[in-house]
Amino acid sequence: MARRNALKVTRAENFADWYQEVIDAAVMGEPSGVRGCMIIRQWGYAIWERIQRHLDDMIKETGHENCYFPIFIPLELIEKEAAHVEGFAKEMAVVTHHRLAVSEDGTLEPAGKLQNPLIVRPTSEAMITNAFARWISSYRDLPVKINQWANVVRWEMRPRLFLRTTEFLWQEGHTVHASPEEADEEVRQMLECYRALAEDFMAIPVIRGVKSEGERFPGAVDTHTVEAMMQDGRALQVGTSHNLGQNFAHAAKISFLDKDGSQQTPHTTSWGASTRLIGALIMVHSDDDGLRLPPRLAPQQVVIIPIDRDESRRDEVHKACHDLAAKIKGQVFAGETMRAKVDDREMKGSDKRWGWVKKGVPLVLEIGPRDLDNGVVAIFHRDNLDAGTQSTPVEDFVANLSQTLETMQQGMFDAAAGYRTEKLITEAKTLDEMRAFFEKDQGFVRAKWCENVETEEVLKNFGVTVRCLPYDQSDTEGVCIVTGKPATTDAIFGKSY
Amino acid sequence: MARRNALKVTRAENFADWYQEVIDAAVMGEPSGVRGCMIIRQWGYAIWERIQRHLDDMIKETGHENCYFPIFIPLELIEKEAAHVEGFAKEMAVVTHHRLAVSEDGTLEPAGKLQNPLIVRPTSEAMITNAFARWISSYRDLPVKINQWANVVRWEMRPRLFLRTTEFLWQEGHTVHASPEEADEEVRQMLECYRALAEDFMAIPVIRGVKSEGERFPGAVDTHTVEAMMQDGRALQVGTSHNLGQNFAHAAKISFLDKDGSQQTPHTTSWGASTRLIGALIMVHSDDDGLRLPPRLAPQQVVIIPIDRDESRRDEVHKACHDLAAKIKGQVFAGETMRAKVDDREMKGSDKRWGWVKKGVPLVLEIGPRDLDNGVVAIFHRDNLDAGTQSTPVEDFVANLSQTLETMQQGMFDAAAGYRTEKLITEAKTLDEMRAFFEKDQGFVRAKWCENVETEEVLKNFGVTVRCLPYDQSDTEGVCIVTGKPATTDAIFGKSY
Repeated sequence: MARRNALKVTRAENFADWYQEVIDAAVMGEPSGVRGCMIIRQWGYAIWERIQRHLDDMIKETGHENCYFPIFIPLELIEKEAAHVEGFAKEMAVVTHHRLAVSEDGTLEPAGKLQNPLIVRPTSEAMITNAFARWISSYRDLPVKINQWANVVRWEMRPRLFLRTTEFLWQEGHTVHASPEEADEEVRQMLECYRALAEDFMAIPVIRGVKSEGERFPGAVDTHTVEAMMQDGRALQVGTSHNLGQNFAHAAKISFLDKDGSQQTPHTTSWGASTRLIGALIMVHSDDDGLRLPPRLAPQQVVIIPIDRDESRRDEVHKACHDLAAKIKGQVFAGETMRAKVDDREMKGSDKRWGWVKKGVPLVLEIGPRDLDNGVVAIFHRDNLDAGTQSTPVEDFVANLSQTLETMQQGMFDAAAGYRTEKLITEAKTLDEMRAFFEKDQGFVRAKWCENVETEEVLKNFGVTVRCLPYDQSDTEGVCIVTGKPATTDAIFGKSY
Repeated sequence: MARRNALKVTRAENFADWYQEVIDAAVMGEPSGVRGCMIIRQWGYAIWERIQRHLDDMIKETGHENCYFPIFIPLELIEKEAAHVEGFAKEMAVVTHHRLAVSEDGTLEPAGKLQNPLIVRPTSEAMITNAFARWISSYRDLPVKINQWANVVRWEMRPRLFLRTTEFLWQEGHTVHASPEEADEEVRQMLECYRALAEDFMAIPVIRGVKSEGERFPGAVDTHTVEAMMQDGRALQVGTSHNLGQNFAHAAKISFLDKDGSQQTPHTTSWGASTRLIGALIMVHSDDDGLRLPPRLAPQQVVIIPIDRDESRRDEVHKACHDLAAKIKGQVFAGETMRAKVDDREMKGSDKRWGWVKKGVPLVLEIGPRDLDNGVVAIFHRDNLDAGTQSTPVEDFVANLSQTLETMQQGMFDAAAGYRTEKLITEAKTLDEMRAFFEKDQGFVRAKWCENVETEEVLKNFGVTVRCLPYDQSDTEGVCIVTGKPATTDAIFGKSY
């Protein structure tokens, strides 16, 4: 019964099609007709708002303040940092005109040509570092710690909803520090925020680590990352935190008068997480019945459906549903008021139920006249649909609710950690063994690596990249999986989204 | 003493320069170097976040859900609604390329020409109505009630921070309804939200009304508006709510199968408020000492400055400040936890104090060793700087705080309502009298008007527009102030930002 209204495609059949179907069935987003740009629909955006609020709180608690910088960046600013240009110049939207005029055939055409074209921000280091140069003159002005929530544009040839879109939403933090130590500390602190967001809030286990030279942010000295594994074994970078050293500060000519009277160049950082997080959420937790949401994240934790075909008892049933919702909303889970709603749309009960199952709501309840008479509710537990309706005394349901949600949150994390452990391979010792693994399977290979950037090109030939050099190094001696030369660094290899 | 660190320009000397100085002194925003685009700095953005959170809550309470639509709109979508094109086509940023390439002289230049140029949204009716056509097929799909928080771009030749900027931030609500009555109700309900935001939260009195034909949103049937008067007597539109009738629905071919089996065209609405609200906030409340913030809106309601030159009592003083801040934050004002912070930067106490005064914080406190000994705090009341330091027992301060803030909130509203009453002229009965008034003064003229759109052109000759036809009509007979013909409608005339 549980699978009656399931998705048309399963994960096993076609992971990519299944992904798309989860989004459609949950009405989370859709293509817009504008190349690579998505519409984030109500449920998808409610999920983003939950992520945003939680992350924003952490960003503020760690002493950052929000600002807003322009969407347009003048070309000459972009040109200043050479490595950065190289990394981004290939995929940017360029504004060349500021007006439309009616052409001879009556259609509209661009007019008012700009002397200097503007690019639509792919990221704001160039713009923000330039402002820092105006804001900072003394050690007293440091540190500067800001963040912005914004849309960014990177022209995307093979778009995919929430994963690779020409326009996406994100936050980008930017900070300036007097010393390299402070910048390093900042970068690690923000990576810890991303870890906490992923693991504690979204129930997505991640590996923390440092990017290899070939995978670093263009212009960065160090890129720290949290990498998650999707159910198909592929990697997705959930958040990144960049130590930009003095590269951008030099390019923008930021300097400050230090306590000792000397003129110094500060160290900058930047860090970001985007609507890709929603892609990760889908691919880590969802099943062949659709989206599954961890209770802490879920926009609604409980949805209550009145079974009201019997007109004579309709009002009574609705009142019981609303009373229960109020009771739930009076409780606290994970530091927040619980979220519940009554779905009283005029629609068949089973359509409603399956609609909410596909949207991933943790608990869907039904209350009809018979339930009222017996003092019970019928519970559909998103994590155990096979069990069907579980009829439970209302009192027990309410009393256990916090624990039920907590168990579910932990269960989702454990399930994700479980398949990640299964798909984490440590046996491969040579390039051939690694290639053989990735030819038949997907997952993470953990092995020794010499850190030579040229070996990254070799790996790319069979679609594999260094995901990160994990924080938890074993500090043992071994041989590089690519070159066979002595190596001590542990690296995680995988195919990525 | 109070004026010691006041702004360099007063309102009376030069209102426009004073406005700019308030922004600079409060570090709210600055030009970015990109034509007409502003940087919203920390304090300006904190104010925007307060406005945003409050308005967003109201939008959700009235049954709307947030979504997100692309920043780019294809030209052909814009072309569909004729009046709309006419209204916006002149001021839009156009994306014509999707790549940069290195030119022969080593600089970057646009490459990858788009077959169909994209415009950067000046507003999203075209895009969103197009999506509605896909979403809606039956009366069961109605109403659709959504909102988005987004950046929009309208090329601005004479930019001014927060008032007229090429890029600005706003929310735009978009709804679809089966009947014209429902659309009308929606439009009025959202105008009421804007009234509540302005009056109850921002302490800005507004006049609710309907726009004249010449001032309507391009493509709308009716535009409702809340109009505020700035201290210089000029008008600023604080929020608008548009009944779009069936115009956009026809253009995008939205239709639905009604209960009776007939195919119908629905009615759409849109409504928005933007970062211009911050411009209004400044011009309604600020004085010659800088920004003034109504307590409900203020990002910080109380800032506490430790007077800690005496090293031997430094820790004690800091502890007392933090204890007091904690006590304040444990209280509730206007349904929210109070907001207080200790400013323990290493900086001269008087510089801190004037910094916060210029940022408009309602209450700035200082606590030094002598205050500790006497169990008092020194209070600078933003609304009564002339009184200087008011030494008050800590207990009394805390016990009265909620009332103090409430009195301040109401006082600011009353002051704004006061000058608006003074500058609302009802004596002018002829065009000459009205012209004479606006030649020597600024304010609102309330008079009878015949509603003929041609008379609006006459008014424009001396820089006056019909601000609105207010909801509170007197329903008396009279003569039109422009034509002298019989007229019953009351209108508000003024010069606007």
